[in-house]
Amino acid sequence: MGSLYEEPATGFHAKNTEGQVITCKAGVLWGPKEAFTIEDVEVHPPQKMEVRIKVICTSICHTDLGAWNALNEAHRAFPRILGHEAAGIVESIGEGVVDLSEGDHVVPIFNGECGECVYCISSKTNLCERYRVDPTRSVMTGDNKTRFFTKKGGQPIYHFLNTSTFTEYTVLDSACVVKIDPNAPIEKMSLLSCGVTTGVGAAWNTANVKTGSSVAVFGLGAVGLAANLSLRRSSLSFFVVLTVAVGAAVRGASRIIGVDVNPEKFVKGRTMGVTEFINPDDFKKPVHEGWGTTVILGIHSTPTMLPIHPMELFEGRRIVGSVFGDFKGKSQLPLLVEKCMNGELKLDGFITHELPFSEINKAFQLLSEGKSLRCLLRL
Amino acid sequence: MGSLYEEPATGFHAKNTEGQVITCKAGVLWGPKEAFTIEDVEVHPPQKMEVRIKVICTSICHTDLGAWNALNEAHRAFPRILGHEAAGIVESIGEGVVDLSEGDHVVPIFNGECGECVYCISSKTNLCERYRVDPTRSVMTGDNKTRFFTKKGGQPIYHFLNTSTFTEYTVLDSACVVKIDPNAPIEKMSLLSCGVTTGVGAAWNTANVKTGSSVAVFGLGAVGLAANLSLRRSSLSFFVVLTVAVGAAVRGASRIIGVDVNPEKFVKGRTMGVTEFINPDDFKKPVHEGWGTTVILGIHSTPTMLPIHPMELFEGRRIVGSVFGDFKGKSQLPLLVEKCMNGELKLDGFITHELPFSEINKAFQLLSEGKSLRCLLRL
Repeated sequence: MGSLYEEPATGFHAKNTEGQVITCKAGVLWGPKEAFTIEDVEVHPPQKMEVRIKVICTSICHTDLGAWNALNEAHRAFPRILGHEAAGIVESIGEGVVDLSEGDHVVPIFNGECGECVYCISSKTNLCERYRVDPTRSVMTGDNKTRFFTKKGGQPIYHFLNTSTFTEYTVLDSACVVKIDPNAPIEKMSLLSCGVTTGVGAAWNTANVKTGSSVAVFGLGAVGLAANLSLRRSSLSFFVVLTVAVGAAVRGASRIIGVDVNPEKFVKGRTMGVTEFINPDDFKKPVHEGWGTTVILGIHSTPTMLPIHPMELFEGRRIVGSVFGDFKGKSQLPLLVEKCMNGELKLDGFITHELPFSEINKAFQLLSEGKSLRCLLRL
Repeated sequence: MGSLYEEPATGFHAKNTEGQVITCKAGVLWGPKEAFTIEDVEVHPPQKMEVRIKVICTSICHTDLGAWNALNEAHRAFPRILGHEAAGIVESIGEGVVDLSEGDHVVPIFNGECGECVYCISSKTNLCERYRVDPTRSVMTGDNKTRFFTKKGGQPIYHFLNTSTFTEYTVLDSACVVKIDPNAPIEKMSLLSCGVTTGVGAAWNTANVKTGSSVAVFGLGAVGLAANLSLRRSSLSFFVVLTVAVGAAVRGASRIIGVDVNPEKFVKGRTMGVTEFINPDDFKKPVHEGWGTTVILGIHSTPTMLPIHPMELFEGRRIVGSVFGDFKGKSQLPLLVEKCMNGELKLDGFITHELPFSEINKAFQLLSEGKSLRCLLRL
C-alpha cells in the first residue's frame, strides 16, 4: 500500500522513526456519509504522555457508523480519521510514558484510564476524569491539536474517540493504550478494543449476571430499553447482543432470551449462547413482568429521550448505563486477554469477514447492511 | 365522636363484635378535591385472610393528597376512604389468619407481603405478587368487593391503597398488616406505615449509603430525578427528603446535600441531618458531575415521562425505583420499630402537628400548604 514501513507485524522495531513525522496510508472521511479515501497522511510524533502505534488490524463498530452518518453536530469535524477497534504495536513513546515501550503489543481504548484521578481511584466507575469516552472530542487532550495532517497541503485531520484507528499509524494518549500479552493472537485482540469488552462486561460487571439468572438481550430493531417488553425500538447492534449473550453464558445464566424482530438472527444467536427467542411483533401486550436491571449500552447520538415513566421503575427495576463494560481498561483488559487465551472467552464466532484495509468502504457496507458481525481489516 | 366503641387504645378487646358489622365514624371523600365528610359507615367483618383493625391514629401523606386531587382516572372511585399511614389494634381476624390475633398492635402497609409468592421469596424485590402497592385498586383483593358501606342507604364505599385508614375501623388483607412490639409508642409508629420507612429505606436499602458517602436529596419544587443537577422539577415531599437525610445520617454519610428552591427548608433540614444546601435557582448550569445512584420515590400518577437521555446514564449513573424503602413489610418492619425504640432512629422531628380526627380537613390543608410535615390525627 505504499506506506513508509512494511515490516512484519511481530518483532517490529522502528527506532529510526522515533521523533519524526511518519507518512503512511489512512482512510480519511471528508464529509458525512462519503466514501473513505485511502490517502497519504502525515502522523506527527507523540507528545508528552502520548504513544504512536502501528495499527496491525482494525475493525468497524456501530459507533463508527454513527460518526460516519454524522447526524449529530458533535460528529461534524472533517476531515477525520474514524476507527476505535484495533490492535497494534508501539512504534514510539512520548515524554513521560513509563508503562509502554517500543514493540509492545497494545490495544487502544476509547475510554482511557490515567490511573490517578478521583474517578480512576474509585471502584465505582470506569470513567477517567481526563480521558473518558467523549464522542465530541476531535483533537488531542494535551494541546487541543491534531497529530494527523494531509500529505498534500498539510491540513489538520481530526481525531475520533481518543483512538482513530483507520490508519497505519496513530497517536493516542498513553492512558488510552493497553499493553497486552505478546503471545495473544493480536488480530483477534482487536475485538477487545470495544465491542466484545462492552457486551461481556455488561453481563459480568454491570448486570453482574449470576449462575441461574435470566437475561433478555434486546437487539437491533427490537423492542428494548425498558425492563419489560413493552413496544420500544432500540438500536443495539446484533454484535453487542451476541457479546452480552456470550458473557451471560460464561457466567452460567440459565435463560438467555434474544429479542429481535428478525427471526433469522436466532440461528446465529443460538450458536453464541441464546437459549430462547422472542419476536416482539408476535405480541400485542407485554409478555413479562418483574424486577431486574436494564443495562443501556452504546453511544446514543440522537436527541431522543428514553420514554420511561417513573412508575415503570417502581417494581424493583433499575436502569444502568454502561461504558466499556464497566472495565477499567488499562488495569483490567489484560485479564480479559487472559480469558481469551485460556479459552474461557471465545472470539472466533464474532469475526465473520476479513479484508485488506484498502477495502474499508466494502467493510462499512457489510456492517451497515447487517451482513457482517465484525470484519477484520488488515493494515 | 359517637362511634360504637370508645375503649382506651391499649388493652383493647372487642370479642363481642367479632363477625359483626361495626358502625363507626369515617372521613369519606365523595369527589375530587371535596372536603371529607365525617359520617357513620358500616364496616363489615374481615373475610378469609383478612383482618379488621381499630385505627388509633392516622397521618396524611402526599399520596393521599394525590388521590384527593384525583388527577388520574384510576383515582376516581367514589365515595372512598383514603389514608394509608396509621397504627392500630386488631379487633378481629378472618378465617385462616394465624400470625395475628385480637389485641395485637399493628401497622398497616400499603405494599403487602404474603410471604409465599415468587416475589416474596426473592431477596431482589419487596413487591408481593398479590398484595403489592396498587394505586388503581379500590376493592378487596379476595372478592373484589368493599367492606365499607354508607350507614344511610348501604352504598359501597371504596378502599384505597390496601389500607383505607381515615376511619375508626378498617379491613385489610392480613398480608398488609404488620404486628409490632406492644411496648413501642403506637402513635409514632404510624409514621413507619409509609413515609419514614420509604425515605430511610431508600437510603439504607436502595441506595445503600455507606459511611463517607455523599447524598443529594431533591425536594419539593426542586430540581430532581437526574443524577446531576440539571434543571428538572421533582415532586418529592419535604417530609420524604428529611427521612432520606435522617437515614443517610444514621448510615454515616459525610455530605447530605438538600436541594430545594425554598431556602427556608434548610433550617428544618439542618436539624435532621442535611449538611449543605443548594438552591437550583442560584445556578444557570449543572453544578456537579459524577457517577452515582438516583433513587426515585413515590407514586407518580401523572403521565409525565422522565426526561432522560441515554447518554446521561453513561457516566456510571443508575436510576432505581424504590417502593416502601425496599423493606419487606411484614418481615422487616419490626426491625425498624426496634431501631425507633432504641433511639437509633428518631421520629419526633417529623410530627409537627396533632389534631383530633374530626379536623381531618384542616390537616389536609396544612399538608397541601406545606405547613406541616406530619399531622397525627387521633381517632
